Amino acid sequence: MNEFFPGVPRISYEGPSTKNSFAFRHYQPGEKVEGKTMHEHLRFAAAYWHVMRNPLSDPFGPGTALMPWDDGSNSVANAKQRVRVFFEFLEKTGIDFYCFHDRDVAPEMDSLAESNRALDEVVHVLAAEQERAGKKLLWGTACLFSHPRYAQGAATSPSLPVFAHAAAQVKKAIEVTHRLGGGGYVFWGGREGYSTLWNTDMKRELDHLAAFLHMAVAWKKEIGFTGRFFIEPKPREPSTHQYDSDAAACLNFLREYGLLDEFALNIETNHATLAGHTMRHELTVAANAGKLGSIDANRGDELIGWDTDQFPTNLYVAVDVMLVVLGMGGLQPGGLNFDAKRRRESHTPEDLFHAHIGGMDTFARALKIAAALRADGRIADFVKARYATWDAELGQKVERGRATLADLEKLALSQPAPNLPSGGQEYLENIVNDFL
Amino acid sequence: MNEFFPGVPRISYEGPSTKNSFAFRHYQPGEKVEGKTMHEHLRFAAAYWHVMRNPLSDPFGPGTALMPWDDGSNSVANAKQRVRVFFEFLEKTGIDFYCFHDRDVAPEMDSLAESNRALDEVVHVLAAEQERAGKKLLWGTACLFSHPRYAQGAATSPSLPVFAHAAAQVKKAIEVTHRLGGGGYVFWGGREGYSTLWNTDMKRELDHLAAFLHMAVAWKKEIGFTGRFFIEPKPREPSTHQYDSDAAACLNFLREYGLLDEFALNIETNHATLAGHTMRHELTVAANAGKLGSIDANRGDELIGWDTDQFPTNLYVAVDVMLVVLGMGGLQPGGLNFDAKRRRESHTPEDLFHAHIGGMDTFARALKIAAALRADGRIADFVKARYATWDAELGQKVERGRATLADLEKLALSQPAPNLPSGGQEYLENIVNDFL
Amino acid sequence: MNEFFPGVPRISYEGPSTKNSFAFRHYQPGEKVEGKTMHEHLRFAAAYWHVMRNPLSDPFGPGTALMPWDDGSNSVANAKQRVRVFFEFLEKTGIDFYCFHDRDVAPEMDSLAESNRALDEVVHVLAAEQERAGKKLLWGTACLFSHPRYAQGAATSPSLPVFAHAAAQVKKAIEVTHRLGGGGYVFWGGREGYSTLWNTDMKRELDHLAAFLHMAVAWKKEIGFTGRFFIEPKPREPSTHQYDSDAAACLNFLREYGLLDEFALNIETNHATLAGHTMRHELTVAANAGKLGSIDANRGDELIGWDTDQFPTNLYVAVDVMLVVLGMGGLQPGGLNFDAKRRRESHTPEDLFHAHIGGMDTFARALKIAAALRADGRIADFVKARYATWDAELGQKVERGRATLADLEKLALSQPAPNLPSGGQEYLENIVNDFL
Amino acid sequence: MNEFFPGVPRISYEGPSTKNSFAFRHYQPGEKVEGKTMHEHLRFAAAYWHVMRNPLSDPFGPGTALMPWDDGSNSVANAKQRVRVFFEFLEKTGIDFYCFHDRDVAPEMDSLAESNRALDEVVHVLAAEQERAGKKLLWGTACLFSHPRYAQGAATSPSLPVFAHAAAQVKKAIEVTHRLGGGGYVFWGGREGYSTLWNTDMKRELDHLAAFLHMAVAWKKEIGFTGRFFIEPKPREPSTHQYDSDAAACLNFLREYGLLDEFALNIETNHATLAGHTMRHELTVAANAGKLGSIDANRGDELIGWDTDQFPTNLYVAVDVMLVVLGMGGLQPGGLNFDAKRRRESHTPEDLFHAHIGGMDTFARALKIAAALRADGRIADFVKARYATWDAELGQKVERGRATLADLEKLALSQPAPNLPSGGQEYLENIVNDFL
Repeated sequence: MNEFFPGVPRISYEGPSTKNSFAFRHYQPGEKVEGKTMHEHLRFAAAYWHVMRNPLSDPFGPGTALMPWDDGSNSVANAKQRVRVFFEFLEKTGIDFYCFHDRDVAPEMDSLAESNRALDEVVHVLAAEQERAGKKLLWGTACLFSHPRYAQGAATSPSLPVFAHAAAQVKKAIEVTHRLGGGGYVFWGGREGYSTLWNTDMKRELDHLAAFLHMAVAWKKEIGFTGRFFIEPKPREPSTHQYDSDAAACLNFLREYGLLDEFALNIETNHATLAGHTMRHELTVAANAGKLGSIDANRGDELIGWDTDQFPTNLYVAVDVMLVVLGMGGLQPGGLNFDAKRRRESHTPEDLFHAHIGGMDTFARALKIAAALRADGRIADFVKARYATWDAELGQKVERGRATLADLEKLALSQPAPNLPSGGQEYLENIVNDFL
Repeated sequence: MNEFFPGVPRISYEGPSTKNSFAFRHYQPGEKVEGKTMHEHLRFAAAYWHVMRNPLSDPFGPGTALMPWDDGSNSVANAKQRVRVFFEFLEKTGIDFYCFHDRDVAPEMDSLAESNRALDEVVHVLAAEQERAGKKLLWGTACLFSHPRYAQGAATSPSLPVFAHAAAQVKKAIEVTHRLGGGGYVFWGGREGYSTLWNTDMKRELDHLAAFLHMAVAWKKEIGFTGRFFIEPKPREPSTHQYDSDAAACLNFLREYGLLDEFALNIETNHATLAGHTMRHELTVAANAGKLGSIDANRGDELIGWDTDQFPTNLYVAVDVMLVVLGMGGLQPGGLNFDAKRRRESHTPEDLFHAHIGGMDTFARALKIAAALRADGRIADFVKARYATWDAELGQKVERGRATLADLEKLALSQPAPNLPSGGQEYLENIVNDFL
Repeated sequence: MNEFFPGVPRISYEGPSTKNSFAFRHYQPGEKVEGKTMHEHLRFAAAYWHVMRNPLSDPFGPGTALMPWDDGSNSVANAKQRVRVFFEFLEKTGIDFYCFHDRDVAPEMDSLAESNRALDEVVHVLAAEQERAGKKLLWGTACLFSHPRYAQGAATSPSLPVFAHAAAQVKKAIEVTHRLGGGGYVFWGGREGYSTLWNTDMKRELDHLAAFLHMAVAWKKEIGFTGRFFIEPKPREPSTHQYDSDAAACLNFLREYGLLDEFALNIETNHATLAGHTMRHELTVAANAGKLGSIDANRGDELIGWDTDQFPTNLYVAVDVMLVVLGMGGLQPGGLNFDAKRRRESHTPEDLFHAHIGGMDTFARALKIAAALRADGRIADFVKARYATWDAELGQKVERGRATLADLEKLALSQPAPNLPSGGQEYLENIVNDFL
Repeated sequence: MNEFFPGVPRISYEGPSTKNSFAFRHYQPGEKVEGKTMHEHLRFAAAYWHVMRNPLSDPFGPGTALMPWDDGSNSVANAKQRVRVFFEFLEKTGIDFYCFHDRDVAPEMDSLAESNRALDEVVHVLAAEQERAGKKLLWGTACLFSHPRYAQGAATSPSLPVFAHAAAQVKKAIEVTHRLGGGGYVFWGGREGYSTLWNTDMKRELDHLAAFLHMAVAWKKEIGFTGRFFIEPKPREPSTHQYDSDAAACLNFLREYGLLDEFALNIETNHATLAGHTMRHELTVAANAGKLGSIDANRGDELIGWDTDQFPTNLYVAVDVMLVVLGMGGLQPGGLNFDAKRRRESHTPEDLFHAHIGGMDTFARALKIAAALRADGRIADFVKARYATWDAELGQKVERGRATLADLEKLALSQPAPNLPSGGQEYLENIVNDFL
């Protein structure tokens, strides 16, 4: 257990007053909230790409991350070594789920066949480590955005050969996700969009994307994979526009192409704000459609126009998330995946631990706050009362689709001027702060 | 003709070299482009609210607009006077369509019944002036966002009495639009959204909005109105979030609630950019769904976060618009409505003319440029060639939904590394500039 | 005390567990923090314009605010009545400072002379109420942005007559601020900017603004007013650009025109974020220049592109503010002015109280958190250690301006590769959350 | 001449009607505009980093650029080979200036001493090629943002050893710029800022930055380098905040630290818009201060929150630029440097040519349009007339600092209500379009 992170202990709960930076202040896996343990509620996952493969580069400079366990090579042996490091990380943090892209865990080789073999080799180690350490795969995915072949799209590439390569990669990634018992599989359209409409046939590209997803659904059924398929919205970056720009755009696409029954959404905080929405908005849109599948728990900087993917430490946002999750009865088979990276200046292995501990404590605390707000009931009562005029006869007739404009005009012509109670936003915001 | 704008002549075409600010440089109604006249292509409309009722106030100060014809009262007589002014404006500019909200043309009175009567009186004058001057109503709508009763929404109000008032207003507005031979009717959800999710039941509000629209469709059929219903997307402002935030959000809503067949979209430039999209993107999304109904032609300032509703003078954006319009074979029964206002500093009646002349000339020029780009063909050919690999057998199989991931994997395992030609964005942008 | 807000008691401290919405949970004026009372630290002020004169209109609709004490007239009698209402508000909330614009407290009449007389009359009542209730004027100012004469600027108007009117208004407003014992006087350049550079001589306008401020300084000295002059940065809105766009732009202007000694800055949270900066950044820039004078305490919505002026309830931002304030030893003669308005839906008088209570509790709590972070010392120690290499000889030589590039090159050629400790952002953010 | 770009001819002028993508439509170096040749006005420069070293990577994927002349090694021989390729590019495009960072032209080696030797070797080739081909260095600079040592800043690093390394690099880069006859030297603070204020002593960092620049000035004088020093504003990216965030922030800093006399600004379009300003605003701010030194000619996408660095093809923006440049009498010793990159999809060498041709033609055209607008005079006359009230006695008294508030109050009390002519924005915008 101390092979790769010798200075870091297994993180345990020490309570809010500890000054130990390698301890939890709030996260106690076994503590019960609304009848379930924190562990059951939160379903934390670590992102293989950020923990193991993110060099902390940015557009103005190469990576800074110290990775003493990594020999820098593209070898399968090095890839296997990383798996062992990663599982030590999972064990020390007490995170029980993880997520990966095919090319994070195993190298891309000279041919697809060789890449597939390399992936199989590493998956073998992943399976063994899962078994040994009692960890699970939250979801898998394929990297269809990094290799230059995907510069102009993968499932929306103008090139059929590229589309075919992407299809083959997804086929394989679904298979290994299935083999590892993954709870889900994510489609993130990192390159599915355009740089300019001057060179793009948007309709044809979306038709291709739909065909791609239909084939993926068929393959999932063929091999008996019962995990859930997720689409992950994101508005732009790296492109000028990406087709899956927000929850509504994804749902519209899924409805248009008859895919709605087969997909749910994986909502990320930083993608929500880049699309101009709050995280709570995106979660609510997804949940209202019965399509909130999983969450990428990070945080953005609203003053910055790209994905900063910071660790989620803002309690207000985390409370918003947990209220929606509690409201829908839990995320399973989804979870809270830390799709977050340290700052480029936070380049030590210890920073990885501080970052994840901060995120876990924030969500543990937010879970308790959200439950307390629900138990208090003042906010829910206020909302219910606000719509009370709808609960009587005519309101119900409208809600059931039995009323006409003429019925309503009759009321409007005879009623006194409507009286609106205060929307109470400031009153409600004060209540929220009471629980922080 | 010189009663209200005595210093302004009827605007006529004088060609590009004129220095007369009260003349067209490019707009010749009868000039043919792609076999139709400019007049048929462009279908310009003036917005009653901006031309007649916009005082040019802003959040930091009241109006500045000089309106010597307006006695400042809320009387029906004053309202009728404004109609005559407006038609002089239409005649002098040569704009043959117009759009209005119920409360623009006629005053809100103490009761709904009285307001309806006032509206009827003014509509009588509008009908007479339409007839006299040979002008047409592009679309009508109801103002469901200004009166304090709508502060918390209209069709999504938490209050059923408010919802009923909105329903009655829409019923009446559809009727008068029908009476005036309107080509369409617009639903703009100015208050349909929320200020905070803490007090909002989004699902229930959207259910109510859908019920409202279904009733409107039923009423339209009942009275035999054959104009088109339009939804107008806008992301926020005045609210924190509005449900009809962009084209995709509107389409998703229409699909979810079984309303897609009955509605098209009215796309506005400034709303597009506030939603983080280019105008061309929103137009293309709408057109691809067969749902581009009409256009609010204005321009925003991308560095400013609210609706500046400036007049459309940017040739690049206007060319984008006209390319989509030509590509779909024309906008009819929709048109190009100048939903645009002068700056608060441009407070003279003459500024109204300069503003509209500038918009009309810009679109006339853009129409010719778009037609020239299409005639040139280099861009369209480039795009077609870019997707050429899809035109052979396997591509067609995929497009027809007959392929499997295994089929594509087979190709991917055997093919050489895909070769991507340049996306050519810089090459294409140079061609566009050739035509400007 | 119960004349105008009969249902609202004098707000008192009841501690964190109360459910009374008309009570403080955290604000105890006499509680000591770092050796001073909360009252001395926080210096809360109410904004006359928001409490008394904001109708809660927005660009899409008129006001909704219920003001049963206001007869809706522009009379001096009505203005005097409002003063009494306002002081009941101050007494019930326990806010001891206030701020106003000349045209908030007294009406604009047909001539400047009459407006001045009306102002004098109302100032007489303000003085009496200050005396009676033991309240103080934090700062005064003149409204140079609302009247149509200022549509093209006040101190930067292209029109000398408008500039003269503004000058006269400022002269008078400084005089009455002096008479009321105001601690300061604010210049907010609401219209000092441009809508388009096509019609603007920026250089000449800035020269005029500087002349204007120099004359104001001379007048201040002439009448013996010893309060502080403040400039308030804001990036845009209502204009396309305002000259005082952020703290750096203001400081640059003050330096260029020899005004730096006579002015400090009044920093507002929502203006900071509209300029693309965090509040902490703007405060730090001002404080580093010795020019942080006063604070407009509100909050914006970073996803929205205009001034939402919400009440400050975000603890993270309030802690940032209080850390800067404690770090500079207090704000006196400035204070924390609630330049914030209720949402348009929060139209009852009670909402005014909820809103201010929430803001006051948030800052009381933030004060204690900031003091605790300072007492803990881990963050300050981390920062100090981060720059430790500068504390030795060569670093000191550089800081004193005695080193040369050649000195440093000598070191660089001989030293080993520099070793950077982690920037520790995630570690530090976790510590912050420990104190929330 | 056909060694490295065999398919590309020397680009020559063929006029607006050509369909040859390897020709100029508007740029004729010898064509006279306002008495000087286009070549003298435009002073185009190519950016070594984008033409030769930009792999076209982005945060989601590695480079795509085809560079058949590059062996991919970090060797000095490869670096020299690139110089020859670059000069062929300059010769074929007819661009006569270039700009570089030290680490673009020569590799970073294991020690500073070796890096300096490598740089010397390559500079020798640069000098020879300049001589041979008749090309000039517009400006040089040092790359202080890419290497991990600079992750926490260079001149504002918390680490003195890092600061020393940066100082040594700048010393050397100024020397080689001097040796190559560079017209200027640019300081771009790519890492001079912060990721979080929690770990940052902003005041101390800015003191260090000022000390750094003072030493650079001293060195410049010591070695007799007479080129101009430029600061390049940019608001954020890669950091959360950069100190040189916009023109005003730079000027404020230069004034505060007594550096104003020694520096001018290098303004970039995309940096302007990222700071929330138009390019014309930033240029005007710089020019008004007598500090517009040089221009990085590119274009951003206002809907995207990072530096897209696209080629400048927007005529409106280019006209804005040329109006300011003509208004100040030319840029010399600065120029128009194409700090712009092809899209990641435009990966062929030919795209480099299309991109630069488009930028050159756009600016050639903009130069002629700007000159025509100036010759026409209507806009300048309108602006002059707008301020006419200032040209009489009292206005002149104010402008000379001889008036008092009392003088102006006297006028204000006696004058009639000021009469504002229209600001005429729409009228002026129509005139601009006449010349496009």
